[in-house]
Amino acid sequence: MKNIESFFTELALGVAYYDEYIKEERLQEDIKLMKEAGIGLVRIAESTWSTLEPQPDTYNFYHIDRVLDAMHGAGIKVMVGTPTYAIPPWLFKRHPEVMAETPEGVNQYGHRQKMDITNKDYLFYSERIIRKLVEHVCDHPAVVGYQVDNETKHYDTAGPEVQEKFIKFLQKKFNTLEELNDKFGLDYWSNRVNDWEDFPSAIGSINSSLNTAFKGFQLSLVKDFLKWQCDLIREYARDDQFITHNFDYDWRDYSFGVQKDVHHYEASLPLDLIGIDVYHPSQDELTGCEIAFCGDSARNLKHQPYLVIETQAQGHVGWLHYPGQLKLQALSHVASGASMVAYWHWHSLHNGCETYWKGILSQDFIPGRTYKEVQEINEVFKKISPYMKGYMVENSAAIMIDMHSLLALEDMKKYGHDLDYNMEIRRYYDALYAMNMGCDIVHQEDIKLNQYKLVIVPALYSVSDDVLDKLVSYTKSGGIVIYGMRSGFSDEHVKVRTEQQPGRITKSCGVTYSQFTLAKRTNLKNPKSVQGEKEDLRLDSKSLIELLKPSENTETLYSYDHPHWKEYSAITLAKDGGGTSVYVGCCPDKTVIKQIYKELINKEDLKAPDISFPIIIRQGINRDGQKIVFMFNYSGKIQTCQWEEENGVNLLTHVKVKSSQNISLSPWGYAIYLIS
Amino acid sequence: MKNIESFFTELALGVAYYDEYIKEERLQEDIKLMKEAGIGLVRIAESTWSTLEPQPDTYNFYHIDRVLDAMHGAGIKVMVGTPTYAIPPWLFKRHPEVMAETPEGVNQYGHRQKMDITNKDYLFYSERIIRKLVEHVCDHPAVVGYQVDNETKHYDTAGPEVQEKFIKFLQKKFNTLEELNDKFGLDYWSNRVNDWEDFPSAIGSINSSLNTAFKGFQLSLVKDFLKWQCDLIREYARDDQFITHNFDYDWRDYSFGVQKDVHHYEASLPLDLIGIDVYHPSQDELTGCEIAFCGDSARNLKHQPYLVIETQAQGHVGWLHYPGQLKLQALSHVASGASMVAYWHWHSLHNGCETYWKGILSQDFIPGRTYKEVQEINEVFKKISPYMKGYMVENSAAIMIDMHSLLALEDMKKYGHDLDYNMEIRRYYDALYAMNMGCDIVHQEDIKLNQYKLVIVPALYSVSDDVLDKLVSYTKSGGIVIYGMRSGFSDEHVKVRTEQQPGRITKSCGVTYSQFTLAKRTNLKNPKSVQGEKEDLRLDSKSLIELLKPSENTETLYSYDHPHWKEYSAITLAKDGGGTSVYVGCCPDKTVIKQIYKELINKEDLKAPDISFPIIIRQGINRDGQKIVFMFNYSGKIQTCQWEEENGVNLLTHVKVKSSQNISLSPWGYAIYLIS
Amino acid sequence: MKNIESFFTELALGVAYYDEYIKEERLQEDIKLMKEAGIGLVRIAESTWSTLEPQPDTYNFYHIDRVLDAMHGAGIKVMVGTPTYAIPPWLFKRHPEVMAETPEGVNQYGHRQKMDITNKDYLFYSERIIRKLVEHVCDHPAVVGYQVDNETKHYDTAGPEVQEKFIKFLQKKFNTLEELNDKFGLDYWSNRVNDWEDFPSAIGSINSSLNTAFKGFQLSLVKDFLKWQCDLIREYARDDQFITHNFDYDWRDYSFGVQKDVHHYEASLPLDLIGIDVYHPSQDELTGCEIAFCGDSARNLKHQPYLVIETQAQGHVGWLHYPGQLKLQALSHVASGASMVAYWHWHSLHNGCETYWKGILSQDFIPGRTYKEVQEINEVFKKISPYMKGYMVENSAAIMIDMHSLLALEDMKKYGHDLDYNMEIRRYYDALYAMNMGCDIVHQEDIKLNQYKLVIVPALYSVSDDVLDKLVSYTKSGGIVIYGMRSGFSDEHVKVRTEQQPGRITKSCGVTYSQFTLAKRTNLKNPKSVQGEKEDLRLDSKSLIELLKPSENTETLYSYDHPHWKEYSAITLAKDGGGTSVYVGCCPDKTVIKQIYKELINKEDLKAPDISFPIIIRQGINRDGQKIVFMFNYSGKIQTCQWEEENGVNLLTHVKVKSSQNISLSPWGYAIYLIS
Repeated sequence: MKNIESFFTELALGVAYYDEYIKEERLQEDIKLMKEAGIGLVRIAESTWSTLEPQPDTYNFYHIDRVLDAMHGAGIKVMVGTPTYAIPPWLFKRHPEVMAETPEGVNQYGHRQKMDITNKDYLFYSERIIRKLVEHVCDHPAVVGYQVDNETKHYDTAGPEVQEKFIKFLQKKFNTLEELNDKFGLDYWSNRVNDWEDFPSAIGSINSSLNTAFKGFQLSLVKDFLKWQCDLIREYARDDQFITHNFDYDWRDYSFGVQKDVHHYEASLPLDLIGIDVYHPSQDELTGCEIAFCGDSARNLKHQPYLVIETQAQGHVGWLHYPGQLKLQALSHVASGASMVAYWHWHSLHNGCETYWKGILSQDFIPGRTYKEVQEINEVFKKISPYMKGYMVENSAAIMIDMHSLLALEDMKKYGHDLDYNMEIRRYYDALYAMNMGCDIVHQEDIKLNQYKLVIVPALYSVSDDVLDKLVSYTKSGGIVIYGMRSGFSDEHVKVRTEQQPGRITKSCGVTYSQFTLAKRTNLKNPKSVQGEKEDLRLDSKSLIELLKPSENTETLYSYDHPHWKEYSAITLAKDGGGTSVYVGCCPDKTVIKQIYKELINKEDLKAPDISFPIIIRQGINRDGQKIVFMFNYSGKIQTCQWEEENGVNLLTHVKVKSSQNISLSPWGYAIYLIS
Repeated sequence: MKNIESFFTELALGVAYYDEYIKEERLQEDIKLMKEAGIGLVRIAESTWSTLEPQPDTYNFYHIDRVLDAMHGAGIKVMVGTPTYAIPPWLFKRHPEVMAETPEGVNQYGHRQKMDITNKDYLFYSERIIRKLVEHVCDHPAVVGYQVDNETKHYDTAGPEVQEKFIKFLQKKFNTLEELNDKFGLDYWSNRVNDWEDFPSAIGSINSSLNTAFKGFQLSLVKDFLKWQCDLIREYARDDQFITHNFDYDWRDYSFGVQKDVHHYEASLPLDLIGIDVYHPSQDELTGCEIAFCGDSARNLKHQPYLVIETQAQGHVGWLHYPGQLKLQALSHVASGASMVAYWHWHSLHNGCETYWKGILSQDFIPGRTYKEVQEINEVFKKISPYMKGYMVENSAAIMIDMHSLLALEDMKKYGHDLDYNMEIRRYYDALYAMNMGCDIVHQEDIKLNQYKLVIVPALYSVSDDVLDKLVSYTKSGGIVIYGMRSGFSDEHVKVRTEQQPGRITKSCGVTYSQFTLAKRTNLKNPKSVQGEKEDLRLDSKSLIELLKPSENTETLYSYDHPHWKEYSAITLAKDGGGTSVYVGCCPDKTVIKQIYKELINKEDLKAPDISFPIIIRQGINRDGQKIVFMFNYSGKIQTCQWEEENGVNLLTHVKVKSSQNISLSPWGYAIYLIS
Repeated sequence: MKNIESFFTELALGVAYYDEYIKEERLQEDIKLMKEAGIGLVRIAESTWSTLEPQPDTYNFYHIDRVLDAMHGAGIKVMVGTPTYAIPPWLFKRHPEVMAETPEGVNQYGHRQKMDITNKDYLFYSERIIRKLVEHVCDHPAVVGYQVDNETKHYDTAGPEVQEKFIKFLQKKFNTLEELNDKFGLDYWSNRVNDWEDFPSAIGSINSSLNTAFKGFQLSLVKDFLKWQCDLIREYARDDQFITHNFDYDWRDYSFGVQKDVHHYEASLPLDLIGIDVYHPSQDELTGCEIAFCGDSARNLKHQPYLVIETQAQGHVGWLHYPGQLKLQALSHVASGASMVAYWHWHSLHNGCETYWKGILSQDFIPGRTYKEVQEINEVFKKISPYMKGYMVENSAAIMIDMHSLLALEDMKKYGHDLDYNMEIRRYYDALYAMNMGCDIVHQEDIKLNQYKLVIVPALYSVSDDVLDKLVSYTKSGGIVIYGMRSGFSDEHVKVRTEQQPGRITKSCGVTYSQFTLAKRTNLKNPKSVQGEKEDLRLDSKSLIELLKPSENTETLYSYDHPHWKEYSAITLAKDGGGTSVYVGCCPDKTVIKQIYKELINKEDLKAPDISFPIIIRQGINRDGQKIVFMFNYSGKIQTCQWEEENGVNLLTHVKVKSSQNISLSPWGYAIYLIS
C-alpha cells in the first residue's frame, strides 16, 4: 500500500478525457480551459481498445502520445486506464466465446462489460494490450498512475467453464461431498449430488446455500481479475506511480448502496489507492447522503483518503445541477475524505448512447455555467488545501457490512421474500446521516469492533458462529450493538439455525422468537407515548415482523399494535455485561430508528449534535491535529443554526465563529471552519 | 375403487415427514411429540429420489426403513410417496433430454417438476425406482397406502416428441385432415395443413381450436402418467393398501379454483382415494371459501370422503394463523367431507427455497402455539369421530365445470380477452358459500343433472351440442339452470356457432344476441328498484357485456344503464317447460349474483338459511342418518344468530339447542351440533 | 401513376371477403346482401396461400374462380391480394429458415408476418404463387386491381444475411470505413471497426448512429419488397387494373401515427393508388382525429384521393359503434379525400384469434344494425357522389415528417429517453384538428415548402444541414415554421452537432441553448396573463425542457415557472427575413399549442374558424371548383354553431344555408354543404 499523500499533496480536480472520441481538433484549447479551471489530472485510455489496437497485434498510440505530451507540457497529470472493459469487434469476431454466458443466455456484442472475465482468450488478448500499453507509457513523466479496468463486476458469468471452476472451489471448501450435501441441505427436492461428476449447473438451483456459494464464488472472480491486472502493471510501473480502480456502488438509477457484484474489501487489497465512482440525484432531490455513504465506505477500505474518479458534471438529463450544487457536492466529497474529485467527463459525447449524460462542457464546447462552477470549486480547493493535509475522519459508530448476508438475502428474493440488504443498511445509515452522527462503513472481515462505541449490523442473515460470538463479546466488554432483523437466522451456509432464534445472540439480546409473519396491518407501538410524537409507527405491509419474546430484564422499546401480536415485542434493548444489545425485529421507518439512537444517546455515552438535516455537518482532523468542520446546507432555503463547537474560524472568509453564535447558510451553501 | 372407511375409521391427523432432510437426530423425539398431538399418519419418501437412489441402480433404504419401523412401533401409519416429481442430478446428467421443452424453452435442472413426463428415459428410471421402492415397503405393516407422484401436472411439455404424439391423437380424433382443417378453421392466415407431414408445432399457433386441442391433449398426458404409476404399484400393493394422489388447485398465490393443467375427474379414475392439497389466505383474509371449494370439488370426484394430504401449519410467511384459526380450518375440512387433515409439514426446513414455508414445528423444533393448536384439534376430532362415521354431504345445487371451456378461454387471453373461467366459477360459488347454500362442484362428464334442483354453468364457452341439449332437457323437465356469459358461444372445437347466439340454448333462455362489447362506463339496472338497494350495480369496465334481446315471455332481471345499450337486457329469466333458465350476459358483482339466487328462492323450490357469512354453516348426514351441523365464525368478532334447524345437541359441550334459540360464536370459533 | 378517378368514378363501399374461411354455403346470399347495401368492391385472396397452393406447385383456384364469377355476375368489382403475408405450413416445413431472425430470436411458425421478407426461399415461393395467381385472374373482367401483400413491414428481420446486406449498404453509403467510424463515433466503448470483416451484428449495438442506420436499412427492405411485387404483377396486369397496397399506421391499440417500420413515401412510389388501413377508438372515445390524420397523410403520398382498404365494421370488442357513428366515420374518410371506404370484413370469423374482431355481419350472418348503417352510408354516398368528382383538399398548413428523426428518437428510448416522435406529431396535429385548421402531413423528402403558409416540424432530431437550410430559407422568404423541441440537435448520422444548439436554425429562431433537463416540477409561464386563462401550463414531469436563451429581438411566448430556470425561455417567436420562426423547447399541453396557433393567427396571415371540436369541419374543392364543406358532430350531444362560410346548400336536404345562420347537428351527426 502506498500513501496517498505522496501522490495527492493538495486537493485535486480531475476529468476523464477521450481524445479518441472527439473528431474536432480540441487538444490545445481543452488544455487551456482545463488550466483555467484548475484541472490537475486527466484519466485516459480506458474503453479505447479498438483505437489502441485496431487489428490484432497492431498498435496505434497516436492519441495516447499526443495527450501525454500535451498534458505534460501543461503540467497536468495523467492516469492511464487499461482498456479491457470494452472489447474490440475483431476480438469478438475471432473468439465469439469470450462473451459471458449468464442465466439469461449468451451476451451479444456491442455493450461494454458483456465478456466473461475468466475466458482464456479474453485474458490472453487483455494481457497483451495491457503489457503493450503500460510498457509504452510507463516512462512518460506525465503518468502518475494507472486505473485497472473500469467498474469491474462479474457480469453474472456462469457458463460451463465457470461452473467447472466453481466445483473445484467447492471441492477445496468441503472435505467431502457428503459434507457439502449436508451443509447445503441438498437432499431437498432430490438435489443431493452423490458424485462430483453429477454436479449440475448452479443456474437452475433452488437451493439458497448453493446459490449463495456460487454468487460468493463469482465475487472471487472479480478479485482475482483485478489482482491479475495489478500484477501485470507492477512489472512495468515506476515507484512513483500508483494503481487504483474505480469501484462503483449498487446501482438503482444512482449509487445506492453496497455493490453486490464485487467484494470491495477483498478486491481492494492489491490496489495502492482506492478510487470510486459516485452518481446521485440532484436538483431538489440532492441530499448528500450518497456522497457521504460512498465516502464513508471507500475511506474505510484502506483507512486513508480516496479518489473520486467519476462523478457527475452536468450529469444525466434529470440531474442538471442548480447553481451552487456542484460546489456543495465537491466539498462534501472532500469532507468525507476524498483527495480528488474527478468528473465524468470533460466534454459531452457526440455519438453513442450517452450523449445525454453530459460533461463539464456541452457538445458545443462552450464554457458555460457548469464550467464556471468548476472554476469556483478550484478557488475553494486552493484556499483550504493547506489545512487539509492529513485530513482524516474518525467516527465512534460503524455499520458492519457482510457480503454473504447480502447475497443470501438477494437469493431469497427469488422466492418472494424481499428483504433488501441495502435498504436495511440505508435505513440505519440515513438516520445517522440526518442526525449528523458520523459513521464508518466497514466490512465484517476487516472491522475492529473495539474501535467503536456503537456497531450496527443490519440483517446479518448468514454468518458463522464466530462472527456472532465476536459481536457478543464486544457487547460484554462495553460495546453497543444494534442488530437488524433476521440477524443470526442462518449459518454461513445459509442453513437456518436449529437453535432458538435469533441463534447465538439470543442471550445477549435477551429475546427469543420462533414465529414471524408479514406486517400487513400491523403498526408499531411506543410504550413511552410522549417521545413517540414525531415517529411514523407504520410498517410496510409487505415487510416481515418477528414475534419477539423478551427476557425478564429486557426492555421493550417498541411492541406491535395488532390485536393478535400485541403481546410480542418489536424492538428491544438489553444490557449484556458492560454493554448493550438492541434487537430490531422489524423494518421500521427512519423516524423510529432515530428514536432508537436518541434512546442510546440518553442512556449511553453516545453523542449527536442538535443540528440536523438539511444542515449537514461533516468533520475530521488534519495532520496538525486541527479539527476541520464542514457545514452544508442541503436545501434550497437559507438555514440557520447555532454553532455548537468550540471557537473557530471560517477558512474562506477568515471570520471567527464563537460558541452558540448563530450561523446562516445560503441555499445549497456551505461553510468550512478550522478549530485549532 | 376402495371404500375410504376401510382405511379411515376415525378422523385422522397427518403430516409430511422428511427424515432425509433433517440432519439432527430427531426421530424418537418427533414420534413422541406426534403421539402427544394425535398424529395418526405420516407421508414419506416423495421428493427424495436422490437419497433413495444415490447413483443409478444403487439404492439406500436407510431413512425409509428406520422411519417405517419407528412409526410402526408407535402405531403411526405411513403413506409412501413415489419420488418421481423431483429427479436426481445423475439422471439429468445422463439424460439432459428428460427436461421438458416448453414454449419458453428447455427447462433447467434444479427446480422440481421440470421434466417431461412423457420422456422415455424419465419413464424408464421412474419405473425402476417405483418398483424398487414399492417392492421394498409393500409388506411393511406400517404402510397403509401410496401417493403416486406429487401434484402432477403436464408442465407445458411441448417438445417434438410430444408434438408427434399430439398429431397421432388428432389423427385418431378426426377421420380426415380435411375434417380437421374445417372444424379448426385452419384456412385462416394460411394455416391450413394439407399433409400430415407438414403439421407445425402447436407452440406458435394463433388458432384457438388447435391450441385448445393441444392443451386438452396435455391433460391426457397427466391422466396417462398417473394411471401408469397406479398400475405399477398395484403389482405390489396389498389389498389393505390404498393408492391416492394429492391433486392441487389453480394457484394464484393460493388454491384458487379448478386446476387448468389436470382434468381431475379423468385423472382420478385409477385412484382408490382422492387426496388434495389446499392452501389459502389466513389471518384477516381467512374466509373458509377455498377450503369449501376444494372440498366440494374433491368430494364429488368419487362421491365419497377425501383426504387433505397437505394444508398449511404455520404456512407461508403471510399466513401465520391467529389463535383458533387452525382449529377452524381443520373442522371446515371435515365439514366438507375430509377424513384426514394432514399438514405440510412436521418441522420446518433448514435449507432450500421453502425455509419460510413453515411446518407444525419451527426450525428450532420447540413445540409452540401451532403445535398446541394441533393438539386441540386432535381433542375435538376424538370427540366427534364417533358421530362422523359415514358422514356425507348432499346438496341440491351444483356448479358444472367444463375443462374444455376453461382451456378455450385461457387461449382467448393470448388475444387480449380476459374472461377468466375460474373467476366466473368463483363469482357464482362465493355467493352461494356466503349465503350458506351448499353446492357440489361436478365435472361435465360426470354430472347427474337430475340429482339437483339448480345447476350453474359458468362460461360454458366451448361444448358440443349434446351438452347443451342435455341442459335444455334438464330444464324442460323441471330443473333450474343459470348460464354464465359466453355459454353456448362456440362448439366443442372452439368454432363460433353459426346459429344466433347463445346457440342451442337460445330458445330455452328466451334471449338472443348478436353483438357484445366492453362494459366501460356501463352499469346494471335493476328494474325492481326496492330489491336493488344493497347491490353493487357497477361492472368492471374491461369486462364483456352481451347485448341481449329477450323474447316476449322472458323476464329481464337486469338491464344495462347506458345511453345506447339501455334497450338490451343483461340478465334474464325464462320458464322453459317445467323449469327455468337464467341467462347472465355480463360479469356482475357477487351482490347481484345473490339477488339472482334470492329471486330463485322466491319463485322456485330453493332454500337458503337466513344466516350468512361470516357465519358459515356446513352440514351432512352420517351413517345413522343423523344430521351434523357445523357452524363456523369466519371473523375476529363474536357473532350471534338464531338457530334455524330442529332441536339438536352441541357435540362438544353436550348442551341442547332449540329452534329459534340464540347462538353465539367466539372470534374464529365454531360449534358442532347433532340433530337426530 | 394512374389516376384514381379512372377506377373510382363514384364513392365506393367495399369489404374483405374470405370464401375460404367460411364453411357454410353463403356466396349467393352474401352477394344479395352486398348488393342491397351498395357494396361495390370486394377484396379477396390475401392470407389464403395454404388454400391456393395446398402443396408445393399444386394449385387450387376453386374459391377464387367461384367468387370472381359470382361477383362479376352481380356487378361487384374485385381486388385480388397477393397471399404472401401468411405462409403455408409446407413452406415452413421445407424451409424453416424463412422465419425471420429478430433481436428476440427466431420467429415461430403460426402467426402471420413472421417470415424474413428477404429470404431467398421465401422470395422464390412467393414469386411463384404471385405469378400463378395473377396469371390466373388477370383476364377476368371482375378484377379491377391488385393489392400487393398486406400491411407489409420489415418485422425486424436482422439475421446474418440481412446483416451482410446491411454491410454492403454501408459500404455504398460511405467512401471508407474510416469515414463511417468517424461519422458514427464508433470509437466509443471500443466499437471501432477497422476491417469490414469484423463488422458485428447491429443487434447488440449501443451506438445510435449505427442502430438508426440499420433501422433505415430495414425500411429500404420493405420498399424493395413491395416494388418487387409490383414489378411481377405488371408483367400480367391489364392497363385498366391498378396496383395498391394497404399501408397501416403506428399501432398503439389503434392507428396512432406515422408507421415506424415503413417509409410510406418511398414505399408508395411503385404503386398506382394509395390504400390505407385505419382503426380507431369508438363509442365515447371516437374523435375522428385518427381518420383525419391517416387521411391527411395518405392523400399527400401521391397528392390524389386514396382508398380506405380496411376499417372497422363492428370492430374490436370495445369499439362496437353507437348508432350513427359508422356513418360519421365513413363520411369523415370521404371528407379527407377517400374514394372508397372498405370494411374488414364482411362476416365475422368462426375460428382463429380474431373471432372477437367482427365484420359487418356477426357469425350468425343475420343482417343487424351494423349492416343497416352500411346501407344508410350507401344512400348518402349515392347522393353526394355527383358533387364529389375531383374533390381535393387543399391546406395552407403542413406537418413535415422525417423518418430518420423518428428512428433516431426510437433508439434513444433504449437508453431511457422517451421523447416519442409520434406523440410530438400528434401534439401539434391534434391541436390543429381541434381548431379546424386543415393540415397536410408530408414527408421531408417530398414537401414543397412554398406551397404552405405554415410548416410544423416536430422533433426534427436527425437531419442534414441541407434540410435545415431549406427550412430557414423558406422562412426568410415569408414562411412560418414551428420547430418542435430537439430540432436541429444532431446531423443525419445522429451525431450531436458541435455548433451551439439548436444548430443551423439558431439564427433563424433567435435562440441558443446548451443545457437541458427534465421538467420535474417545472411549469410554463405565459407572460401575457390574460390570454393564458384556459391553458394548462403544466409539463409532464418526465419530459425534457431545453433552457433557451433568446436573442435580443426574439419574443418569449412562454418561459419556465421554476426557481432556477425562470431566466430561460421555453417557447420563442422570432422574425427572420419575411417570415417567422417559432421554437418550442418543451413538450407543452395541447392548450398551449393552441395558444401558439392563435398567436400566429393574430400576427400573421393565418386563419381558423371560430368553430372547434367537437364540431369538426373538413372541406375541399371539386372538379367544378365548388367548395364542399363537411360538418361533423363528434359528440353524443346536440351541437349548434353559426355558419361562417358564404351561402350554400345542404347536399342531402337541399335546404339553403346563409352566413351567420345557426346550424344544429344531432349527436354523432353530420351535414354536408355545397358552396358554388
